[in-house]
Amino acid sequence: MSSERLIYLPLGGAGEIGMNAYVYGYGEPGRERLILVDLGVAFPDMDTSPGVDLIMPDITWLADRADQLEGIFITHAHEDHIGAVAHLYSRLNNVPIFARAFTANIARRKMEEHGQDPEAVKIISPWPEVTKLGPFTVGAVPISHSIPESGGLVIDSPAGRIVHTGDFKLDENPIVGEAFDPDLWASISKDGVKALVCDSTNVFSPHAGRSESELGGNITQLISEATGMVAATTFASNVARVKTLAEAGERAGRSIVLLGRAMRRMIEASIETGVLTDFPKVLQPEEAGEIPRENLMLITTGSQGERRAASAQLARGKYRGLELKEGDLFLFSSKTIPGNEKGVIWIINQFSERGVDVVDDSSSLYHVSGHANGPDLERMHDIVKPTMLIPMHGEHRHLRRHSRLAEAKGMASAIVVNGMMMDLTGDRPKVAEYIDTGRTYLDGSVKIGAMDGIVRDRIRMALNGHVVVTAILDEDDEPLGEPWVDIKGLAETGQSNAALVEVMEEDLNQFLMRAGKKTLKDDDKLEQELKRIARQSANAEIGKKPEVTVVVSRMR
Amino acid sequence: MSSERLIYLPLGGAGEIGMNAYVYGYGEPGRERLILVDLGVAFPDMDTSPGVDLIMPDITWLADRADQLEGIFITHAHEDHIGAVAHLYSRLNNVPIFARAFTANIARRKMEEHGQDPEAVKIISPWPEVTKLGPFTVGAVPISHSIPESGGLVIDSPAGRIVHTGDFKLDENPIVGEAFDPDLWASISKDGVKALVCDSTNVFSPHAGRSESELGGNITQLISEATGMVAATTFASNVARVKTLAEAGERAGRSIVLLGRAMRRMIEASIETGVLTDFPKVLQPEEAGEIPRENLMLITTGSQGERRAASAQLARGKYRGLELKEGDLFLFSSKTIPGNEKGVIWIINQFSERGVDVVDDSSSLYHVSGHANGPDLERMHDIVKPTMLIPMHGEHRHLRRHSRLAEAKGMASAIVVNGMMMDLTGDRPKVAEYIDTGRTYLDGSVKIGAMDGIVRDRIRMALNGHVVVTAILDEDDEPLGEPWVDIKGLAETGQSNAALVEVMEEDLNQFLMRAGKKTLKDDDKLEQELKRIARQSANAEIGKKPEVTVVVSRMR
Repeated sequence: MSSERLIYLPLGGAGEIGMNAYVYGYGEPGRERLILVDLGVAFPDMDTSPGVDLIMPDITWLADRADQLEGIFITHAHEDHIGAVAHLYSRLNNVPIFARAFTANIARRKMEEHGQDPEAVKIISPWPEVTKLGPFTVGAVPISHSIPESGGLVIDSPAGRIVHTGDFKLDENPIVGEAFDPDLWASISKDGVKALVCDSTNVFSPHAGRSESELGGNITQLISEATGMVAATTFASNVARVKTLAEAGERAGRSIVLLGRAMRRMIEASIETGVLTDFPKVLQPEEAGEIPRENLMLITTGSQGERRAASAQLARGKYRGLELKEGDLFLFSSKTIPGNEKGVIWIINQFSERGVDVVDDSSSLYHVSGHANGPDLERMHDIVKPTMLIPMHGEHRHLRRHSRLAEAKGMASAIVVNGMMMDLTGDRPKVAEYIDTGRTYLDGSVKIGAMDGIVRDRIRMALNGHVVVTAILDEDDEPLGEPWVDIKGLAETGQSNAALVEVMEEDLNQFLMRAGKKTLKDDDKLEQELKRIARQSANAEIGKKPEVTVVVSRMR
Repeated sequence: MSSERLIYLPLGGAGEIGMNAYVYGYGEPGRERLILVDLGVAFPDMDTSPGVDLIMPDITWLADRADQLEGIFITHAHEDHIGAVAHLYSRLNNVPIFARAFTANIARRKMEEHGQDPEAVKIISPWPEVTKLGPFTVGAVPISHSIPESGGLVIDSPAGRIVHTGDFKLDENPIVGEAFDPDLWASISKDGVKALVCDSTNVFSPHAGRSESELGGNITQLISEATGMVAATTFASNVARVKTLAEAGERAGRSIVLLGRAMRRMIEASIETGVLTDFPKVLQPEEAGEIPRENLMLITTGSQGERRAASAQLARGKYRGLELKEGDLFLFSSKTIPGNEKGVIWIINQFSERGVDVVDDSSSLYHVSGHANGPDLERMHDIVKPTMLIPMHGEHRHLRRHSRLAEAKGMASAIVVNGMMMDLTGDRPKVAEYIDTGRTYLDGSVKIGAMDGIVRDRIRMALNGHVVVTAILDEDDEPLGEPWVDIKGLAETGQSNAALVEVMEEDLNQFLMRAGKKTLKDDDKLEQELKRIARQSANAEIGKKPEVTVVVSRMR
């Protein structure tokens, strides 16, 4: 027994916000039985991952040990916790996937979409019901968040109890879904918790979080004062907010239209699984034409400025027959995630040009966060009273601050980032091993490694442009005609006022005419030299050193 | 006289924040004598302008009328007001450039760097001194901002007085540079102002702005409590802030080191021109090695997360022999401009990994804005009491809000964006004409148009990857060998588990073998078909439709 250990290994989400994936294991070193908590995605951006569709954790370590894996638990249905399951499931030995009803509903749709067996997803009931998996007994403890049915996990092992919070806030009146119940959390903690593995995203927010229920009045007032059409956007998965918005619209005598696939899908899943029991009657966009515009309220996807979502479409003009005009109102019932500012601001300015008044959350009246703030995290520490606190889901700065908070209160703690396998068997977290982790990109229909150089090449072409040099050599390795240059993403004319391609072709030709037999015979050397000349020539003409592809054809 | 008119035409800065350029004119329509106020740059980003060095207004309209231009006034030395002068000056008929001493110092350095005559920059003294230029008489009225010697302009024309604020805040104790003097502004306004053309960037800030002088105490307290090395970053041009930081460091018994070229240059220009008279003694980075780290304070460039600036360099590790470590303190005495969040957060996380405590402005203790907030703008309206208010320097949403503020107070107003030439002769602004405007990119050493397609091609390569297809045809237009494919920025292997290039070559070869004489003879048609097949083939294999360059060589 003393040779067995309890391990914790984040493969994603620790040292970043997004793509959560946490492994727990128990057993002899190297032969632990494993469970995986969450398998989410992160979203690409033009700066670091242009053209990429989704970012997922690199699960090589886990896939290599898929026979040790007992199952996967999904804490809630946000994309950064559930989004990669269907994409990566084929590498995970067909283990069962456990989730509560609403989350399972979403997971099954995703599995089906990606050609995986939806029946792999098993519905579990909340605590005190538990699931036994190898050395682990796992139960899902309801807690409030910005999506229905978020759950913390109680993970019992022979080495003690771990409480893995998932994402959470302390909302005792969350409108939809289960309220935070301090007594329940005290009861799971009363016999001692070895480790609290705890959400860190809002650790820098200095005031206690506000309840979802605080918004209804403000939103109702805003909408009832509006004279034209009203549209409001929030995360589709924030079903409570969608309900609050819809009810506010209804109270103001407006018919509700849901715009955007995700919006309709989430409400559908919520009703199917019983987490949403009453929701105002919804009109189809086609039916809205018959309603006076001052009696309409649209609830739209795209609160983060996503270019193809309903909000951006409306900002561009008519969308599904609906259009916002002078005197209408658009509400962001949301916070802009860092990095999305430009897209959101673009929408606001587009609406401004149309004369639409935009209200955002700068007044703090129309949005509350779904995560526990600094004081809420401390309250959770005080309820659970763990021997050690492991901050998870956060960038390094969040993990560090959270870890310091815990240490200041006498808990053992450690800053654990992706790839750090921690041994939690003793009273303090101890590094057991460092594992190679990273990111896998879904790129079109294939998966590529973030470090494969593919995306790096794209970024370089975007920064430097691309030159293609074609040269043909005859049977005697002599140039057949002059080399040919094509450019993409480069100025057509440079310093000498001649066409860039002509200047480059001239320079390359000069080189070829003078090149020795040895160079002309050697493919690698020739390519290298042509590249060098092409870059030199472009740099002299336009002050840029482009990427160069050289194609040498030999007539043999 | 009745056939003459007073016009206002923004070429940049109206409908955006950045690249300010405002034309005023007086005379017969089409033959107005013109002056230009400011000629600034905007900064590129990966989303819309990858690889671009600087963004400048397209001044084609003005360059075509350079013989009507009397001169250029620069209100202050921020890059978005001064940055394009040296780059575009050669198209502006060698007209004189007017600026006050500090601004002129910076402008002359820039002119010299770009091979222009620094003597074209004329130093003007502040109001009541004025410069007569054609039909205009122009004076520079001191006002506070986040750079020394910012000035509003009083522009007198036969049609009346315009007050052009430039960027400003109402700071009666700005530490460096002239204070806002309400009496002075009242005196220039007492005989009636036709139009107030007014900064709009902070119109959404609901509280009156705070003075630069409020920060010294907070910063001094923070630094005096620090136990390790301290570094602080702000805009180099915010000379008052740099002084506040340096004096706080000095009071805490620390030696000051300025890191970053811009930081040293700005302090130098400030001392040379007398706007800065006392500044703590500064050490060279090389001298800092001899000082205990708890007695050092670094003041660094790169408050916006710029990758090559001193702050980012320090976040990466040792920079000019100096390195921040566990227990040191890094202060952002700055606000992050929307769009720069990721770079700033990257720095914070890098420092977090090094154990450096980062303090930013989330507490509002260590930074104040340089722009007039909503209530400050209203105060300015009330002092100047113009017949009309033209909001400038702002995105559409800012201009719209500012215009509404003015209308609510009974002033005539209009939302004027780049390219809208307004006739200000009467009592209300009237659209005279729409002018084509746009953006010019400095790209390497050449200027390209934003709409030339060059940057669009780069963005497409970044999103879709690039395929080069090479085919050689003999004298009879028959394929000589098989077509050749090179890829850049694309996965090497797709659905069929074979190399992507091989699958594509096979598909392209199949096509060439079957292609009719007519297609093979026709360069355009052949290229078009090869492109189509290449995209189809890539899409089937990897789910992406790449950019394709086709090179067909004919042996003739």
